[in-house]
Amino acid sequence: MKRVDLNCDMGESFGAYRLGQDAEMLKFVTSANIACGFHAGDPGTMRKTVKLALENGVAIGAHPGLPDLNGFGRREMRISPAEAYEMVVYQIGALWSFVRSEGGRMSHVKAHGALYNMAAVNFALAEAIAEAVYKVDPELILFGLANSEWIRAGKKAGLRTASEVFSDRTYQSDGTLTPRRQPDALITDDDAAVRQVIRMIEEGKVRSRQNVDVPIQADTVCIHGDGVHALAFAQKIRDALEKAGIAVQAVGRTE
Amino acid sequence: MKRVDLNCDMGESFGAYRLGQDAEMLKFVTSANIACGFHAGDPGTMRKTVKLALENGVAIGAHPGLPDLNGFGRREMRISPAEAYEMVVYQIGALWSFVRSEGGRMSHVKAHGALYNMAAVNFALAEAIAEAVYKVDPELILFGLANSEWIRAGKKAGLRTASEVFSDRTYQSDGTLTPRRQPDALITDDDAAVRQVIRMIEEGKVRSRQNVDVPIQADTVCIHGDGVHALAFAQKIRDALEKAGIAVQAVGRTE
Amino acid sequence: MKRVDLNCDMGESFGAYRLGQDAEMLKFVTSANIACGFHAGDPGTMRKTVKLALENGVAIGAHPGLPDLNGFGRREMRISPAEAYEMVVYQIGALWSFVRSEGGRMSHVKAHGALYNMAAVNFALAEAIAEAVYKVDPELILFGLANSEWIRAGKKAGLRTASEVFSDRTYQSDGTLTPRRQPDALITDDDAAVRQVIRMIEEGKVRSRQNVDVPIQADTVCIHGDGVHALAFAQKIRDALEKAGIAVQAVGRTE
Amino acid sequence: MKRVDLNCDMGESFGAYRLGQDAEMLKFVTSANIACGFHAGDPGTMRKTVKLALENGVAIGAHPGLPDLNGFGRREMRISPAEAYEMVVYQIGALWSFVRSEGGRMSHVKAHGALYNMAAVNFALAEAIAEAVYKVDPELILFGLANSEWIRAGKKAGLRTASEVFSDRTYQSDGTLTPRRQPDALITDDDAAVRQVIRMIEEGKVRSRQNVDVPIQADTVCIHGDGVHALAFAQKIRDALEKAGIAVQAVGRTE
Repeated sequence: MKRVDLNCDMGESFGAYRLGQDAEMLKFVTSANIACGFHAGDPGTMRKTVKLALENGVAIGAHPGLPDLNGFGRREMRISPAEAYEMVVYQIGALWSFVRSEGGRMSHVKAHGALYNMAAVNFALAEAIAEAVYKVDPELILFGLANSEWIRAGKKAGLRTASEVFSDRTYQSDGTLTPRRQPDALITDDDAAVRQVIRMIEEGKVRSRQNVDVPIQADTVCIHGDGVHALAFAQKIRDALEKAGIAVQAVGRTE
Repeated sequence: MKRVDLNCDMGESFGAYRLGQDAEMLKFVTSANIACGFHAGDPGTMRKTVKLALENGVAIGAHPGLPDLNGFGRREMRISPAEAYEMVVYQIGALWSFVRSEGGRMSHVKAHGALYNMAAVNFALAEAIAEAVYKVDPELILFGLANSEWIRAGKKAGLRTASEVFSDRTYQSDGTLTPRRQPDALITDDDAAVRQVIRMIEEGKVRSRQNVDVPIQADTVCIHGDGVHALAFAQKIRDALEKAGIAVQAVGRTE
Repeated sequence: MKRVDLNCDMGESFGAYRLGQDAEMLKFVTSANIACGFHAGDPGTMRKTVKLALENGVAIGAHPGLPDLNGFGRREMRISPAEAYEMVVYQIGALWSFVRSEGGRMSHVKAHGALYNMAAVNFALAEAIAEAVYKVDPELILFGLANSEWIRAGKKAGLRTASEVFSDRTYQSDGTLTPRRQPDALITDDDAAVRQVIRMIEEGKVRSRQNVDVPIQADTVCIHGDGVHALAFAQKIRDALEKAGIAVQAVGRTE
Repeated sequence: MKRVDLNCDMGESFGAYRLGQDAEMLKFVTSANIACGFHAGDPGTMRKTVKLALENGVAIGAHPGLPDLNGFGRREMRISPAEAYEMVVYQIGALWSFVRSEGGRMSHVKAHGALYNMAAVNFALAEAIAEAVYKVDPELILFGLANSEWIRAGKKAGLRTASEVFSDRTYQSDGTLTPRRQPDALITDDDAAVRQVIRMIEEGKVRSRQNVDVPIQADTVCIHGDGVHALAFAQKIRDALEKAGIAVQAVGRTE
């Protein structure tokens, strides 16, 4: 039986500031990437979000980002591989501590925003982060963009990897995402988005913007958590996957 | 054979800013309290300091503080017990991650500055922090001011505690430290400082400012790491303790 | 003709985080207290909020707070008068720069949250902050709780002061607010809230919880900006004031 | 009579952390670039440094940087021109407030670290920052790397500019600095460094690494403030300039 994971970024509130709709979204996804206090999140938010994820039986991952709260971790910073290593070790540990103190265990790591995008095309950064993950816990699964340096670096480090795909983004013939600044980067039709994902899972292929079939592995699908439309789409894709006979479960689970 | 631990705050550099003389001090002390990024320290400094401590065979503890880098964690903040719990869970985990990734293990937790002082006289805060430590790892040893709420809260939580004493501070007849703002709060004569510590260890007593013998348990002695005099005093007290036949070793070690 | 100012805290968004409904609230109030980046706000938010206030002809004030973004400036910190002075000088200047670059001028200063509450009962803090305001610009008006140290300190410094009153809070016979932890601290009936304000303005009196008339000066009324109810109440009190023949205008304006 | 300014970065301490030797360096330089709290500095340090500069009759400039205290503003961040504009307006104002409250006036603005380097080759960034400076105060002088986008953007904005040269760096035939990663980027011989500066001032030329004379304007020389050697070199270059009959004075001064 084919299977796939649905992951969503969570725990991105900060102090008096509320963001996202974590409690509702946890009903649809199978993996939660929880912010660790650098680009978003704070100790109170982390604790609350970990508890919520455990109550919903959703797999927990650390979601480390760049130290840029004001920019929400979305502005690229020229950091060295050593700095990337250190900021990821720090953030994984901070979240691990909440997971452990609440009686759960951490399943995966997925980098956030600019850190995710930078390492996708920079092997030295991806390698440093993969090494950080491995050194903290070799059982952790590294989530990374399908066909990117993340997957190559994770495998080299000896980690289990999960190739992440996007339902609402188009792909290039080299297997990479169409950059957002291009006009046809986004898929706005929900049915088309769902069909793209199901084909990725069933056939291991995606039709590129250049109309070529490209091989792609789809272990986990990124589900956006913000916006009024987010919950409806999460429900829709989950229903469609189950109807297609695809098991929706966290990457590391064997049920 | 009598024994005692010598502990010192470390890893308090931050980015381009250097503080302390950790490499030298690690030759004299047996426990290092390593800053976790809230009042001081950053991921790079934490990694480096953990490595140094492991190389020197010095026991490693988390040194969580208030989120006040500009005030170095020395300004009291009115935080709730829940906030204290959360910020301590976070910081222990952040340091734990470096200890684990470097192949060591964490031995203890000692709060920093205003957080240490506030909880010493506020049972609800001490209790919340002790619970945080216990939930993250019940094997961790809680360092706290001798005769303070730290010890009471640690024991109640089920933690092993270490009563901390000060060589260079005078005591009141109720077993508490003479507040710093009082003129006779500090012991400036090194020999008197060393004698006070040795008597605490050998007889379990300290002579108060009011000239009364007060019972005190001395599991670990706080050694200051900054100032030109710090290294000389660390050497002096270590030599004096060994000459007095007192074993100097980390609290949790059984050698 | 009697007159009064309606002031509201604004510009409390931060990066990706949105807070408040500034654009709508600016239609009802006459003074905007704009966060300066310590407890809330950031350079982008400050610029945008200053522009909005100028477009609406609303008087602009700096709203300095404690350096505690995670606690939204609501947690008391034990800072010295010198530290209070310095953090207020810094924050006034930061906002002043946006006001000047947008072609406006700054009218007043009102401290935020715990800084406001601490100085209301601590003359040394209030005095240091009043001195900071005066040294930056002696024409600035200091907003402070009616009958508190703010007013005393402002007058001593040589500043024009504005006594702030609350529509939704009850008062004690000594002219201070009933602490929030007491059951009768809040006035939840909107009509009663409006009547209390109008009486303060017309008669210079408020009926205390102990049923005594207490003298109070009402130069400016604090209008809350958050919550679904906020806009409706702002409209209601503004209408009621105008109906009662009370001019609603910024403190420093002479129109 | 030929003249030149000597400028030095200052006020880069932060809380408990000390950096630089501002009091000593102020005896040799004529312009102080004071950190504004983003990459270094804090309100207390800013106040103290402004006072010191005024006492020494040294011209004061704002030294805005990227919001990256841990990286000391040295890591490039991909910020938009609007973000650059806003963070510079904020920081100029913060420092302006201390200058005004201490009775002085601000003379110039010089960006720090990565912000300086990025805008030197990115006209859109330099233009946004020049506009920020102009809008806050059109009398401010913009310091920027000689022959870079800083000078072009400053002039376009209507600002007076000061072309900055380096005594200890070699130049390329296009008038730019040899990148630090190249082996011959630094001039380590003090006498050669001094000769390079004097020739720039007297002849308006610098001999490039490719052995070609390149036209360069030298309004102000960057003097490093850290390191044991810094004070000796500051004294040496000042003496040499005066011996060569070159007046050493702040850019905006007419004495």
